Amino acid sequence: MIKVTILYPNAEGNTFDMAYYTGKHFPMLRRVFGDSMKATAIDKGMASGTPGAPVPFLAIGYLYFENISAFQNGMKEHAAEIRADIPHYTNIKPIIQISEVVE
Amino acid sequence: MIKVTILYPNAEGNTFDMAYYTGKHFPMLRRVFGDSMKATAIDKGMASGTPGAPVPFLAIGYLYFENISAFQNGMKEHAAEIRADIPHYTNIKPIIQISEVVE
Repeated sequence: MIKVTILYPNAEGNTFDMAYYTGKHFPMLRRVFGDSMKATAIDKGMASGTPGAPVPFLAIGYLYFENISAFQNGMKEHAAEIRADIPHYTNIKPIIQISEVVE
Repeated sequence: MIKVTILYPNAEGNTFDMAYYTGKHFPMLRRVFGDSMKATAIDKGMASGTPGAPVPFLAIGYLYFENISAFQNGMKEHAAEIRADIPHYTNIKPIIQISEVVE
């Protein structure tokens, strides 16, 4: 299983609309990826692990696929639609990581 | 539910021993946090979402607790033991984020 992790870094002036992300963006992702996407998860940043420091990420989204090809095939078809939706909920350019789920 | 996310950034010279992390460090975390820790997960960085770019994080660890207090109480007691184990598997200073699990 692989996990696509989408991290939205916190910084002065960065905005993130969690209601849109959960209510509109993720339902769209589920629609375009269909059965190839096995699960999703969303975190809302609360605090840094270092007391007094700002929270590192305003939000982190997770998309699970059987393998990288399943993600890449979906992106080939739907990347334009997905990217066009991002300005509706954030002005942040996300960091995108592909990981192996070790455990 | 809250999630403590521990991110190990990738950079020139950064090292990470996944076998130690899964085989020694996480078992130690489970022992010291006990029943207060509800679940754990580990990701191994494979690739960036941007083709050709380096993977952003070599590894990401996740610790789930009912609330922040459950994590903080465990850290009060065991932070020294946990921190002392880090040099056994990495030379990276991790980014630690506390998140609310939205979904």
